[in-house]
Amino acid sequence: MSDNHKQEMKKISTAVIKRLPRYYRYLGELLENDVVRISSKELSQRMNVTASQIRQDLNNFGGFGQQGYGYNVEFLYSEIGKILGLEKTYNIIIVGSGNLGQALANYIDFEKRGFVIKGLFDVNPRLIGIQVRGIEIRDIDQMEEFVKNNHIDIAVLTLPKQKAPKLANDLADWGVKGLWNFAPIDLQIKNDKVIVENVHLAESLMTLSYRVKDQLE
Amino acid sequence: MSDNHKQEMKKISTAVIKRLPRYYRYLGELLENDVVRISSKELSQRMNVTASQIRQDLNNFGGFGQQGYGYNVEFLYSEIGKILGLEKTYNIIIVGSGNLGQALANYIDFEKRGFVIKGLFDVNPRLIGIQVRGIEIRDIDQMEEFVKNNHIDIAVLTLPKQKAPKLANDLADWGVKGLWNFAPIDLQIKNDKVIVENVHLAESLMTLSYRVKDQLE
Repeated sequence: MSDNHKQEMKKISTAVIKRLPRYYRYLGELLENDVVRISSKELSQRMNVTASQIRQDLNNFGGFGQQGYGYNVEFLYSEIGKILGLEKTYNIIIVGSGNLGQALANYIDFEKRGFVIKGLFDVNPRLIGIQVRGIEIRDIDQMEEFVKNNHIDIAVLTLPKQKAPKLANDLADWGVKGLWNFAPIDLQIKNDKVIVENVHLAESLMTLSYRVKDQLE
Repeated sequence: MSDNHKQEMKKISTAVIKRLPRYYRYLGELLENDVVRISSKELSQRMNVTASQIRQDLNNFGGFGQQGYGYNVEFLYSEIGKILGLEKTYNIIIVGSGNLGQALANYIDFEKRGFVIKGLFDVNPRLIGIQVRGIEIRDIDQMEEFVKNNHIDIAVLTLPKQKAPKLANDLADWGVKGLWNFAPIDLQIKNDKVIVENVHLAESLMTLSYRVKDQLE
């Protein structure tokens, strides 16, 4: 086993993983602006983190930098993309096709990165049959068969918190591997291999009000 | 100055602040289920954090617990609400009234917690004039006057990243105190009193793909 490989096998902390998409975003912007290479110092000034933090973070995955040269932007972008799993393709369904579900279905950037929306589902008869980017919103009763027949990897949950726990466990039983959960509840999934990533919007807004409140007149 | 007051004045770490909305959510659920009091041990089991973490977090704000009794749910819920600034009212505008902006405008839960949507704005002539929950989507050209005349505290940015930096700084100049930013960019605001809270959806999805990728067949 090479040293680099050993490093890859280390348990990477959640904090590091959460920073990787931000590196990826900044490197993508540099690439759009035809920047070929960048030092950890320059990258740190742009990103407002310390250069040693950047070096430490990237060393978790074997480094990528060269003394005196810095980082090759295209190479680093592509390597971080691989670490994040973006060279693969994920089949996605959206469960709950109201405004938020439709907003997520319309993010073409997701599709560019390998997240392919295969199906949209809802219980509301007024939504069923409507097309979003050419994909029809289906009755949620058809979801089990659809998930089993279409190799669905990730389900996006934009549904009321009362309905989320049961549906999340059903989806896990049907073979879904990841849940991107927007329902304001912490899901307990019996199958502990299923990954849950939460976007708790109300909590984010309260973090903002905590900091804004003292500035109100 | 009382001891409690001194503790309130301490600099509270971001990690603690980010956990408070989750305590608030759990306590709200207990309250809905008519639970009157709870020990830090019970709360810790439900929330899947250690009891000592809970005690430590709440001690930042003066405690609230009583040895041998635990926490009074209603009192603790209300106190955390106050810490989070939820006893105040925030006037909000949404900048960018596509699917995501409309989804956020439709969250009545936000309004219950004091976040009152005063205006919606867009550049798209097909959206201008449409009503969302009785609020008309206005032309973004009218935004400066609207913000100045309506004491707007928080602006929600659901607009393309190219337009976000200039508009964010304009809004800060017009008196907005907080920005809830959904554009995939880190905003640099000249007025450093203005608070920015980001919801970077693409980054959340990449954190999920990082963890799901090894389970793909």
